[in-house]
Amino acid sequence: MILDGEPRLSPRGAARQAGLRSQNLALVVEHVARAGTVSRADVASATGLTRATVSSLVEVLIEARVLEWAPAPAAGGVGRPASPVRLAVATVAGLGVEIGANHLCAVVVDLRGERLAFREVRGDFASPAPAAALASVAALATTALAAARAAHPDLVLLGTTLAVPGIVRDGVVLDAPRLGWIDVDAAAALTDVAPDVPVAVGNEASLAALAESHARPASTFLYISGGVGVGGAHVVDGVVQGGVHGFASELGHVVVDPAGPDCRCGATGCLEQYAGAQGLARLAPSDVGRALGIGLASAVNVLDVAAVVVGGALGDLLPRLHDALTAELATRVLAYPWAPVDVQRAQVRELPGLQGAALSPVLAALANPESLLRT
Amino acid sequence: MILDGEPRLSPRGAARQAGLRSQNLALVVEHVARAGTVSRADVASATGLTRATVSSLVEVLIEARVLEWAPAPAAGGVGRPASPVRLAVATVAGLGVEIGANHLCAVVVDLRGERLAFREVRGDFASPAPAAALASVAALATTALAAARAAHPDLVLLGTTLAVPGIVRDGVVLDAPRLGWIDVDAAAALTDVAPDVPVAVGNEASLAALAESHARPASTFLYISGGVGVGGAHVVDGVVQGGVHGFASELGHVVVDPAGPDCRCGATGCLEQYAGAQGLARLAPSDVGRALGIGLASAVNVLDVAAVVVGGALGDLLPRLHDALTAELATRVLAYPWAPVDVQRAQVRELPGLQGAALSPVLAALANPESLLRT
Repeated sequence: MILDGEPRLSPRGAARQAGLRSQNLALVVEHVARAGTVSRADVASATGLTRATVSSLVEVLIEARVLEWAPAPAAGGVGRPASPVRLAVATVAGLGVEIGANHLCAVVVDLRGERLAFREVRGDFASPAPAAALASVAALATTALAAARAAHPDLVLLGTTLAVPGIVRDGVVLDAPRLGWIDVDAAAALTDVAPDVPVAVGNEASLAALAESHARPASTFLYISGGVGVGGAHVVDGVVQGGVHGFASELGHVVVDPAGPDCRCGATGCLEQYAGAQGLARLAPSDVGRALGIGLASAVNVLDVAAVVVGGALGDLLPRLHDALTAELATRVLAYPWAPVDVQRAQVRELPGLQGAALSPVLAALANPESLLRT
Repeated sequence: MILDGEPRLSPRGAARQAGLRSQNLALVVEHVARAGTVSRADVASATGLTRATVSSLVEVLIEARVLEWAPAPAAGGVGRPASPVRLAVATVAGLGVEIGANHLCAVVVDLRGERLAFREVRGDFASPAPAAALASVAALATTALAAARAAHPDLVLLGTTLAVPGIVRDGVVLDAPRLGWIDVDAAAALTDVAPDVPVAVGNEASLAALAESHARPASTFLYISGGVGVGGAHVVDGVVQGGVHGFASELGHVVVDPAGPDCRCGATGCLEQYAGAQGLARLAPSDVGRALGIGLASAVNVLDVAAVVVGGALGDLLPRLHDALTAELATRVLAYPWAPVDVQRAQVRELPGLQGAALSPVLAALANPESLLRT
């Protein structure tokens, strides 16, 4: 229900008007973000808004440094009416931070998701005493943010998000076995990096799927990634599904074989034991592919998706896993004859969890551009 | 964004006004349906609409025979202003039809989901030639509908829905192994029962979950039912999740043990081989419970739900399965320590798929009461 509306005078009318403008701003930003560089006329025809409305909204968004004029096409008319717009370069940013067992990293990205600064340290960071790793990653994030601000003095930061390989709730890492962490208030340790913005903590695989979703707008897929452990996410029309508590898509613990190896989680035969680092070291690729196919078949029978996207080390190995994996899906997904499953390698290959962490506050703001008018 | 609005004069304003009225009608109906019998003042305070708006909408809904005045409370004021309203009794109906391997049945329910007429035939109806079963069930549905109309001459029928134990798309049963059906255009065979209303065909377990959801409004749960086969549905805030193609929640084919028995689907060790009729005949209850726990643990790791609802023959057996089932969930659901799973028996126990089939057009209309103003 996105409509132009004439001004209203009653307070309720005013509230409704603001709601409509907010929706229309989001509609314009979404279209520009997806199109890359686009004329206002094309935005109008794609969104169903009038040209006058689009022009007025674009002015507001340029004033707020959300959009900017793009170079006009070489051929064509002259003057501003023909000028296309795009997401503004290096004006508004998100800070992503990641802690893994063997690396710490931080990145600042702008509204387009382009990197403005990046820092990474390799080492051994798994420890039941998390203070040292958190202090190190906070320092790394501080230097990355300082570098981005030095290059872009007017940069507005929206938020900081930390990606961790574990179960997270309300900024607390409840359990991250690969880090050796239990009940770590990681958000509190990062507030000093940028005290004026919110700090969030997310599951690494969910954030990696967010980055992948940014690369394939508004699509629906099941994401699975393997590095040390195995994680996943279910993305529906561009939205990562959290489930009731935010713990959905723990694909590493779907059962492959109850008589299989002990898992660190206390169960047996979890997918992570076949497709995580230990499984990759122990098994032939065809056996990894078969186990992945069994686990993913259960997930696809539950969710009904047409695409599985494979990231991380599993994505690198995908050519060697693909046939065994697909054969199991074809055998075990009940609806496969009518709904075959396309298995693809992830498009975001470099630190997708970190990229998703940095994108997280950016994409939230782009979905609600009204919030950016106030920054 | 549900707001009162003063009348608007432009065509766009008019359209917007109609959209708001439609939303407000739905809000009133939803609240009355959930409350059972409720005063207009309580509807107003629960929905945030003004009393005047609620009264006006209630008048419209009573005129359309969607709501009716309920007997006034024994104590209290006099006259219409204090009269509570409720969903109208036996005015508007849905026709549900079910074909199983061993029974045919048909039911007519009103807006409350109460039965107005019911017919059932027991026998052996599995046959690769579906014409006889379809003709029998059409005749049964015709007699049920005639009985309902004889008792309620002004009854308005909204739609006919057939429940089948199989994979369904666009009114066609693609595959229903327990019936022996492949590619059967079941909707076409039922159009003559009530030629003026749409005919739909749905998966029996999805429709059973719809009936269960009607009994627990706006809740989120994973439904699993076992009779001959095993089916399921994932209900989120009262909405049955279909997945990309409508084939979601095939819980009977989640893998329990890849070295397990051959399944009729072509795979091995599917949950249906442990918790379907053959499994129940072959295995001790604790082994059925364990297999159910393994399969459901995979599904809960994928979906993150707080409640599993067990229906059909499995629901009847639940007391004997519960401990083994819950032990597997506790061991295998990664987030169980922070998000335990409550396993409950289904509330709708008599032919839930049939009830859901009859409710399906009714609930769709109640969610969009504007559609009922035209009948």
